[in-house]
Amino acid sequence: MFMSQVVKGIAASDGIGVAPAYLLVDPDLSYDKKKVDDTAAEYARVEKAFQDSISQLETIKENAKSRLGDEELAVFDAHIAILSDPEMLSQIKDDIELNQTSAEEAVDKVTTNFSDMLAAMTDNAYMQERAADVKDVAKRAMSNLMGKELPNIAGIDHPVVIVAHEITPSDTSQMDAKYVKGMVTDLGGRTSHAAIMSRTLRIPAIVGSQEITTTAKQGQTVIVDGLNGDAIVDPSEAEVKEYEDKAAAFEAERAEWAKMVDAPSKSKDGKDFEIAANIGTPDDVEDAMAQGADGVGLFRSEFLYMSSDHFPSEEEQFKAYKVAVAGMDGKPVVVRTMDIGGDKPLDYMPLPEELNPFLGYRAIRICLEQPDMFKTQLRALIRASEFGPIEIMFPMIATVAELRAAKQIYEEAKAEVQADHPSLGDNVKIGMMIEVPLAAVNADALAKEVDFFSIGTNDLIQYFFAADRGNDAVSYLYQPLNPALLSVIKHVIDAAHRHDAKAAMCGEMAGDQLALPLLMGMGLDEYSMSATSILRTRSMMSKLDTTECAKLVDDALNLDTAEEVEALVKERLNLK
Amino acid sequence: MFMSQVVKGIAASDGIGVAPAYLLVDPDLSYDKKKVDDTAAEYARVEKAFQDSISQLETIKENAKSRLGDEELAVFDAHIAILSDPEMLSQIKDDIELNQTSAEEAVDKVTTNFSDMLAAMTDNAYMQERAADVKDVAKRAMSNLMGKELPNIAGIDHPVVIVAHEITPSDTSQMDAKYVKGMVTDLGGRTSHAAIMSRTLRIPAIVGSQEITTTAKQGQTVIVDGLNGDAIVDPSEAEVKEYEDKAAAFEAERAEWAKMVDAPSKSKDGKDFEIAANIGTPDDVEDAMAQGADGVGLFRSEFLYMSSDHFPSEEEQFKAYKVAVAGMDGKPVVVRTMDIGGDKPLDYMPLPEELNPFLGYRAIRICLEQPDMFKTQLRALIRASEFGPIEIMFPMIATVAELRAAKQIYEEAKAEVQADHPSLGDNVKIGMMIEVPLAAVNADALAKEVDFFSIGTNDLIQYFFAADRGNDAVSYLYQPLNPALLSVIKHVIDAAHRHDAKAAMCGEMAGDQLALPLLMGMGLDEYSMSATSILRTRSMMSKLDTTECAKLVDDALNLDTAEEVEALVKERLNLK
Repeated sequence: MFMSQVVKGIAASDGIGVAPAYLLVDPDLSYDKKKVDDTAAEYARVEKAFQDSISQLETIKENAKSRLGDEELAVFDAHIAILSDPEMLSQIKDDIELNQTSAEEAVDKVTTNFSDMLAAMTDNAYMQERAADVKDVAKRAMSNLMGKELPNIAGIDHPVVIVAHEITPSDTSQMDAKYVKGMVTDLGGRTSHAAIMSRTLRIPAIVGSQEITTTAKQGQTVIVDGLNGDAIVDPSEAEVKEYEDKAAAFEAERAEWAKMVDAPSKSKDGKDFEIAANIGTPDDVEDAMAQGADGVGLFRSEFLYMSSDHFPSEEEQFKAYKVAVAGMDGKPVVVRTMDIGGDKPLDYMPLPEELNPFLGYRAIRICLEQPDMFKTQLRALIRASEFGPIEIMFPMIATVAELRAAKQIYEEAKAEVQADHPSLGDNVKIGMMIEVPLAAVNADALAKEVDFFSIGTNDLIQYFFAADRGNDAVSYLYQPLNPALLSVIKHVIDAAHRHDAKAAMCGEMAGDQLALPLLMGMGLDEYSMSATSILRTRSMMSKLDTTECAKLVDDALNLDTAEEVEALVKERLNLK
Repeated sequence: MFMSQVVKGIAASDGIGVAPAYLLVDPDLSYDKKKVDDTAAEYARVEKAFQDSISQLETIKENAKSRLGDEELAVFDAHIAILSDPEMLSQIKDDIELNQTSAEEAVDKVTTNFSDMLAAMTDNAYMQERAADVKDVAKRAMSNLMGKELPNIAGIDHPVVIVAHEITPSDTSQMDAKYVKGMVTDLGGRTSHAAIMSRTLRIPAIVGSQEITTTAKQGQTVIVDGLNGDAIVDPSEAEVKEYEDKAAAFEAERAEWAKMVDAPSKSKDGKDFEIAANIGTPDDVEDAMAQGADGVGLFRSEFLYMSSDHFPSEEEQFKAYKVAVAGMDGKPVVVRTMDIGGDKPLDYMPLPEELNPFLGYRAIRICLEQPDMFKTQLRALIRASEFGPIEIMFPMIATVAELRAAKQIYEEAKAEVQADHPSLGDNVKIGMMIEVPLAAVNADALAKEVDFFSIGTNDLIQYFFAADRGNDAVSYLYQPLNPALLSVIKHVIDAAHRHDAKAAMCGEMAGDQLALPLLMGMGLDEYSMSATSILRTRSMMSKLDTTECAKLVDDALNLDTAEEVEALVKERLNLK
């Protein structure tokens, strides 16, 4: 009897997709040892497998040219060069001829020797990395020998649903959003790389399903319901029809949202709010404007540092900030100062390895110890303020003393700029992230000294619950709706307002549908999120009454658990 | 002209010590390559160096017998066996004879080959560990060849001040407190391993001096002033005299404290408190009683799990808890349930490697997912309560839901025990650590469901400031006197009292002299600390008036920074 299977996971990116499964899983490349008689024919098999591998790599490279940069493309050339190495081929040939080994065994043995030799060069990082290349190439040659197919994201040229244990940044860099209709992974939470990228690329996605790679077979149809977190494997025709209808309804809703692009961000009862975009590079400004952002609530300045091979000069930084600020056409741009360290290392600024990088030497902690580097960024920002309203935000501030030290360095940078450009920077607003728990509880003292707060919920939740947001084993502690956390957020917003500072939020929670009525009820002023979520949020905001939202907050804060709050919000919103 | 040098660091352990410096620093073992003519004489040098190494190891082992366990002693035998390996010696001999290499080069080359070979056995952890042994032995043989001395903690037989970059657990395990008059390190903070061990062993110590290993030379006299954090290198006679007087005054004070051993823990105005001991094994109970502890405020149950090669049975655990509880002679013993994971791995319970173990899968998070393992511990604890008052404390609770789940498992364990022993466990008190920030802000909801809180300040501060307490680069964020942190602690104490729960503290802060008046002013009920700090604290407590302390708290909470609070407390206490 026919039965589809439903795999439940975490809804990571809106929308519904239907397509055959594309498994990002390596094939079984084990083989039995045996003696061969016709050693010439056996070596001919090796030559063919290597030749096939080279052709495949050339095709993949060709197809990827439009999407990848020169550096990524060069990897393919390096792999082709390994497959053409005469020394390696001659060792394989010798092994087959002298020992009558099979092609599989000879290729496996010789390539393993090569990569082990490279890996043993512990004082040469470059050669060690080549060991991984040899292994990659060997995998391709072995799969060609055995007639098995390797997954190849860059080569996808028809609609698929990607099914994977987890998805890495190198996977997403090769993905063509045109063909990828959905993604389902075993691992990951709402703030994992796969989840964030799926929202950016607008691909319906489910993460943390635990079992999709064992349930879905290559080529089986998979429905990805990114609204509810359900993946339906091998659906019936009726199910496909049902979800096609749901997808159509969702598209209609999306069309409705699109009409909000020029509308103000207002509640049903006419209270004004701001909905802004989180961006990573100046290029993202275009999309933010297209989605009707009221401003940029978080410009992550790290890209400048991470995409460069040297410390970016004041001039390089100035140009990037100018592009962003000019592109926003008079709308404010909040730039977060350098947030590197620990898990975001820079080649040209070596930092010690840390046991717990999320609790380490990073962001403002580095800037306060290296004020010259910090001032370079601040001067570039102040100069860019000539071209539009820039606001500067310090990350990872824990104490009043740190905030004062950062502001002191800002004042020095401003004085330096004003030597040439009098009064430039006098209108730049200064704010800080609220992401360290101590800063949240100490919001009153801090609010006196800034123009705005921006609550970074991803880190704030991670630290308040002492649970790494990238660690699946403790993902149950990512609880934006926990009443104790909500009371902290309310405290931060109230403290900002008590001292005439603006209260903004720029973590995942700002774009969360269930959190929206609560945050509106607390009077949060600005909601900064992926550009793709802006219109949906503005639409939803227009249907909510702030007095009812405030009542909802009171009721939620009287509950004990996140589950109870979720049920309450859904009931009030008439969801499920 | 004669000049002593003062190196400033963090005062880690009380007291003053004066002795010659003993540098825990490896000698330079580099050598120039050269061809030798008399190869027989050269090999004779090798034989002598190996023989000397064996004799040294035998002496060290003999001297260490009284202090070390069989397992630690076996390491010396393994090292001696390596030095007697005929295969290794014959390779060295061949190299000298055939290539005319020097003894240094031959020993270096052959031992490096051996250890690389062992290290390459990546599927055999045992052989990989032997690679480290070969390296250790090679270092000793090389130093003997070159007539240089290796540091040897276990062999110290005269008074010294240990000077080191940092001190590891294996270093302290070999230390004889009789001869070590002081310790000074470059790295570490007040909660580093070296600092904690120095207090346990009652050795005056300074950590985090940054530069002691570059300033102090082998054998130079060093004064360690563990009261103020000053190390005086190569002092004048007058300075030695001055510090001998200070040491005498301190000893007199210590004698004064000793009289408090049977005194009650009371403030000057007669308010009752409890001063308890933190212990790691049942053996520590004796010392806690000798120091006049009012109870055990923290019994870390990990030792049971970490010192065993299998999961400890209910019977094994029961015996350990029974010893502790019986030894305390009717005084209460608070046992913290299993706090393993991440940085405290167990061989027989493999856990995934984590990017941020302090934010990972550990303690109660593991127990809630493995209730059978957890129940084994709880049943053992309930059974041990027959022999004295036991209280059970859950670590790392973040949410109300977790606390309820832990209590539910406790109820099940109790029902199982009561099948055989009716009513056993009905009087066991249940509490939780306050160390996760969310729990601290949510103290009111949690206090309703427990008999007591114990504030674990080491972790609480680490998480509230998002700063790893083992990471020197962010040690400036260990701020127990930060006013925002003090307000959190006051909130936790007040919440406990609002719901008739007891408020205790078991982190480093509980034994901190500057924190004591603040904590008394907030009404903290129980102070749990290293046994060595109990009498000093009880003496200081007897001189403080709680009304004045409460006034001090009010004033401190109106300040902005930790520095300001520290200055205020010192002023009120008439310090410096």
